[in-house]
Amino acid sequence: MICNIKEYDCWFQRRASVPLARLLGSVGLLEQSLVLENAAGELSALLTKNFAVLSVVEGKDAGTLIGTIPGLNAQLGLKLPSTKPEGFVIKVSDTRVIIAGQDEIGALYGVYRFLALLALGKINVGTELIDAPATQFRSLTHWDNISGDVIRGYAGKSLFYNNGRVDYDEQRVIDYARLLASIGINRLAIGGTFGPGPGQLLITESMLPDVARLAALFRPFGVKLLLNVKFSAPYTLGKLPTADPLDADVVAWWKERADLIYRYVPDLAGFVVKADSEMEPGPFDYGRNHAEGANALAAALAPHGGELVWRCFVYNCAQDWRDQSIDRARAAYDVFKPLDGMFADNVLLQVKFGPYDFQVLEPVSPLFGALSKTRYTLEVQVTQEYTGQQIDLCYLPYKWERILDFDTRYGPRSTLRELLIDGKISGVGAIPNVGLDHNWTGHTLAQANLYGYGRLCWDPSLSAEQIAREWSALTFTDASVADTVSELLLRSYPAYEKYNAPFGVCFMVTPAGHYGPNIEGYEFSPWGTYHRADRFAIGIDRTGSGTGYVTQYAPENAALFGDPATCPEQLILFFHRLRYDYVMKNGQTLLQNIYNTHFEGYDEVKHMLELWKGLKDWLDEHTYSSVLTRFERQLANAREWRDQINTYFWRKTGITDAHVRKIYE
Amino acid sequence: MICNIKEYDCWFQRRASVPLARLLGSVGLLEQSLVLENAAGELSALLTKNFAVLSVVEGKDAGTLIGTIPGLNAQLGLKLPSTKPEGFVIKVSDTRVIIAGQDEIGALYGVYRFLALLALGKINVGTELIDAPATQFRSLTHWDNISGDVIRGYAGKSLFYNNGRVDYDEQRVIDYARLLASIGINRLAIGGTFGPGPGQLLITESMLPDVARLAALFRPFGVKLLLNVKFSAPYTLGKLPTADPLDADVVAWWKERADLIYRYVPDLAGFVVKADSEMEPGPFDYGRNHAEGANALAAALAPHGGELVWRCFVYNCAQDWRDQSIDRARAAYDVFKPLDGMFADNVLLQVKFGPYDFQVLEPVSPLFGALSKTRYTLEVQVTQEYTGQQIDLCYLPYKWERILDFDTRYGPRSTLRELLIDGKISGVGAIPNVGLDHNWTGHTLAQANLYGYGRLCWDPSLSAEQIAREWSALTFTDASVADTVSELLLRSYPAYEKYNAPFGVCFMVTPAGHYGPNIEGYEFSPWGTYHRADRFAIGIDRTGSGTGYVTQYAPENAALFGDPATCPEQLILFFHRLRYDYVMKNGQTLLQNIYNTHFEGYDEVKHMLELWKGLKDWLDEHTYSSVLTRFERQLANAREWRDQINTYFWRKTGITDAHVRKIYE
Repeated sequence: MICNIKEYDCWFQRRASVPLARLLGSVGLLEQSLVLENAAGELSALLTKNFAVLSVVEGKDAGTLIGTIPGLNAQLGLKLPSTKPEGFVIKVSDTRVIIAGQDEIGALYGVYRFLALLALGKINVGTELIDAPATQFRSLTHWDNISGDVIRGYAGKSLFYNNGRVDYDEQRVIDYARLLASIGINRLAIGGTFGPGPGQLLITESMLPDVARLAALFRPFGVKLLLNVKFSAPYTLGKLPTADPLDADVVAWWKERADLIYRYVPDLAGFVVKADSEMEPGPFDYGRNHAEGANALAAALAPHGGELVWRCFVYNCAQDWRDQSIDRARAAYDVFKPLDGMFADNVLLQVKFGPYDFQVLEPVSPLFGALSKTRYTLEVQVTQEYTGQQIDLCYLPYKWERILDFDTRYGPRSTLRELLIDGKISGVGAIPNVGLDHNWTGHTLAQANLYGYGRLCWDPSLSAEQIAREWSALTFTDASVADTVSELLLRSYPAYEKYNAPFGVCFMVTPAGHYGPNIEGYEFSPWGTYHRADRFAIGIDRTGSGTGYVTQYAPENAALFGDPATCPEQLILFFHRLRYDYVMKNGQTLLQNIYNTHFEGYDEVKHMLELWKGLKDWLDEHTYSSVLTRFERQLANAREWRDQINTYFWRKTGITDAHVRKIYE
Repeated sequence: MICNIKEYDCWFQRRASVPLARLLGSVGLLEQSLVLENAAGELSALLTKNFAVLSVVEGKDAGTLIGTIPGLNAQLGLKLPSTKPEGFVIKVSDTRVIIAGQDEIGALYGVYRFLALLALGKINVGTELIDAPATQFRSLTHWDNISGDVIRGYAGKSLFYNNGRVDYDEQRVIDYARLLASIGINRLAIGGTFGPGPGQLLITESMLPDVARLAALFRPFGVKLLLNVKFSAPYTLGKLPTADPLDADVVAWWKERADLIYRYVPDLAGFVVKADSEMEPGPFDYGRNHAEGANALAAALAPHGGELVWRCFVYNCAQDWRDQSIDRARAAYDVFKPLDGMFADNVLLQVKFGPYDFQVLEPVSPLFGALSKTRYTLEVQVTQEYTGQQIDLCYLPYKWERILDFDTRYGPRSTLRELLIDGKISGVGAIPNVGLDHNWTGHTLAQANLYGYGRLCWDPSLSAEQIAREWSALTFTDASVADTVSELLLRSYPAYEKYNAPFGVCFMVTPAGHYGPNIEGYEFSPWGTYHRADRFAIGIDRTGSGTGYVTQYAPENAALFGDPATCPEQLILFFHRLRYDYVMKNGQTLLQNIYNTHFEGYDEVKHMLELWKGLKDWLDEHTYSSVLTRFERQLANAREWRDQINTYFWRKTGITDAHVRKIYE
């Protein structure tokens, strides 16, 4: 029996049979709303498509009722419990299935969750479930260019643009909206982030009708659009002499522009801005700080209920490598911590998880927990820029779980997970991994990253393993295949860590492209990410006697990271400059551990490839061979990492591997 | 008095006064031909434009006569001596100036030479001059893409193409033809060299009319076109199932295509082909050798008198850096030497000057002199791909003089200069450095490279210094400015050598872009150019006990290069792997010499910048500041080279500079 998956359908695969078919054959909706009607439609359509329910009829006395909790309680005299916004209740008796949302979008989320649980075999008579998202801001930001190319995209061309125009396959966009809603994503930023980008164009009158049409496609799925805009728009678009955020004409221009935009998209969620970042214009150009910059734009959005997402990726990207007084890792904290409390209420700072840039192994940014009077979000990448570009399998929830585990040590309940659940972190943002490839994500198994991102935003207490098992079971309908796939997912991130830049030293990756090793590729660059390896030692001293970066953490963490003896060894080269003969906890030297991890990382990929080959007779040919090809490329990549890293350090030190494995000259 | 140059006019600047104005006021032409008429027109036009000759009238009894040597001897009973093809005689008496060519193109060359000598003050009553080019094949190959971008071009967009079409400013092309003819260039290859390129398109019926129009613009200047074609054209264009050169249909296809092309351009000089080179298709794809490949195309050209230029840049560009058994430097000799004598008479192999790829310091290729039964040419770059990209001043005739000095040791008269003069090397080819920038070459002083290239093709016995002085005096009408410019030119190449990759080790340049340092940029790449530096030593052993590359040279050279004690030290790291403590002839270690040359190279650029600043009051503002800006960028580049190279080796060795100059950590 072959597990024949339809990769386009992602986690919505066809099932052989279904319980409760009697109740599911009719769906009733007692309230009217765009989203509720879509919820009922989605349930009906997906039941007949995937669950052997032959047809679904509608009616007030239906076996399955969809609605809002207040609505159903009022109309039917039920006593469904209330939950948080966007939450839902599922209740299954032998006479009725009820899917009720705290609000209309909650009902839609309830429908998708019901379908997932149905597929997982977890819906039975007696099922009672209440669930709600931990945070209200669960977003994805597209880096698509108006050309149709996707910056850091590894899954084909843009879903939205082609050749200088907004140009899309409407069904494809609807199917994307379904995928997003089914995992609880409720914000989608379009308009790119770099360079002239479409963000600039989208807010012109000639393109706003296109934006309005896209918004209309996402609206029934509860996904609100955000627009990436440029800080410089008042002079580039508005032809004003300045974009100074304190200039009255600039303030007026943003207000007028926001008013115009909201005429086209009344429920726009707001703007996303990358200012003073990697050559993008920003408030520094006018001697203003980032609170002044952000607040000017936020004021234009406030009357419409919009929010301003302001990225904290601000650092000196024209550093002289000779200058050891600058430490890029310090930048976000140095810029934003002093401004804590100065941002308008509708500003959301978006903080990258780490101080660098989505590296495989870097610490959690010291800004988390340190901001206490400012609303801010956690930013991660779903697209695998530094994590194998959807050629290498790299299951990111594994990493995200560890980020959420991080204890900031600011008061009680101070892990990122708790801060998020308690609303002290106000949301999550990420760059998606999707494009026009038929399977959405290039690597079919990379669908797990998109799925996992949404699930973790919804419920940060889920483990990476729970998500892996859930996604695998939803996608691969055969249980033993799903088990193997789960195992592959869970092995993948640790393997990737092993064959990449060692122990948190970061940026040994090919410049610009960011795939594959280039050990000195950033060593003399202006980007501020150096390892300064010489024949004796490697790494940057970021302790108090070094760049002082470590002092940006709460005292307990500063002490923990500041001492090599207590610093987590996976990150030890981020915080410390160490000699190659430094003895690590396993009694072996740093250098020997570098050799070990790189031999092991390659071997682990080889093992993963064998595991996949074991699925040959269990999978349809297309899925099997498309993933196989990627595993083979991953193995070649792991081999380059292993050999280049080992040869590099061997040439530098002349110290051989204790186990006499092959290191090339 | 300011030296106000018109940079567009290059070496045709306006002069204050002229001798022999009486004779030059009338020009006579007794023969009819397209080129002769152009020669007379050029003389008249340039005399009035630049030489204060108010007007030029035409007539049989003119003071200045232009014609061919046979024609003038016959018609006027003169006894002008005969010379070689394309040569000329200039004879000035107090009653007449005679400019006579061995043929019509010789007369045109005589006119330009006469004008140059006039500008240099070297034309007087009594001047008698006879001159002819050393070789008949003096070509430039454009790497322009049909998009208008120029591959390895640093002087703006293409002169010929724009946005997917042949699209040019006709006057600009004519002015380019003038520049080429004035330095004796008689072949121009258009059609690009890489990828799909325009070469493929140009030989289609839809574009051949464009080619014919371009050919017509160049024809009065004696410049014949060559077309870059693709070896794969029979299947990509012709839709045949193969491009196998021994396939009868392929042979027929090439014949038909050549016949078609010659209907549009009857005097086409031939084709240029880059086959089996850097992913380009070639005879190896069909298990054929390069003689079989070249001869198939040559046969199609032979009936039309066309020549096939076949580039010898064939090597394995997908090498595994781990594999030390392959040596890219060996490739051209290994492929082509065994085929010597097997090529058709109208094939010209084009051999890069060195075994690598236009590096700053690499030896002359062992193919020179080793081919004795095959017609072949010397290939260099005028465009400054690896030599500073027309940001850095780098006067290339300095290098070319040393290439021509190289003694192959194959029989008597065995330097490249002698081989060229004696016709054993059949010509010279190069990639030009021009584009749509107003000054043609980006860096105004880079015009000297174009000028020098033409002059050296014509007369390989000229020294770099002679050419520098001649070009400077023609371009900068003030003698002291010209002196300083000459000095800058002559200092520039040795300075560039000093701050670049040391002692012939090559390829420490930024991958892909090829500007600025990246010391390990190619170290783990597939391109076959490695230095394998470790903490003790650097370089590849290419002696008989190493890769054996050195044995490709004649025995005397194999011995010379094969022993570090006799190997020219500038190239010592091309041939040998040496320890950093190897003692060089100056008594200092290799490492100390690396440090020294890099400090000196930077200081030399600083000095050049100061020399240029000394011209501030003597030059027009535009010329002064445009060159100044480039010197400032060059200084920044030299600083990067100095510091990255020194830091790299310091980190590797821990050995400090003997003079305690600043090396960054």
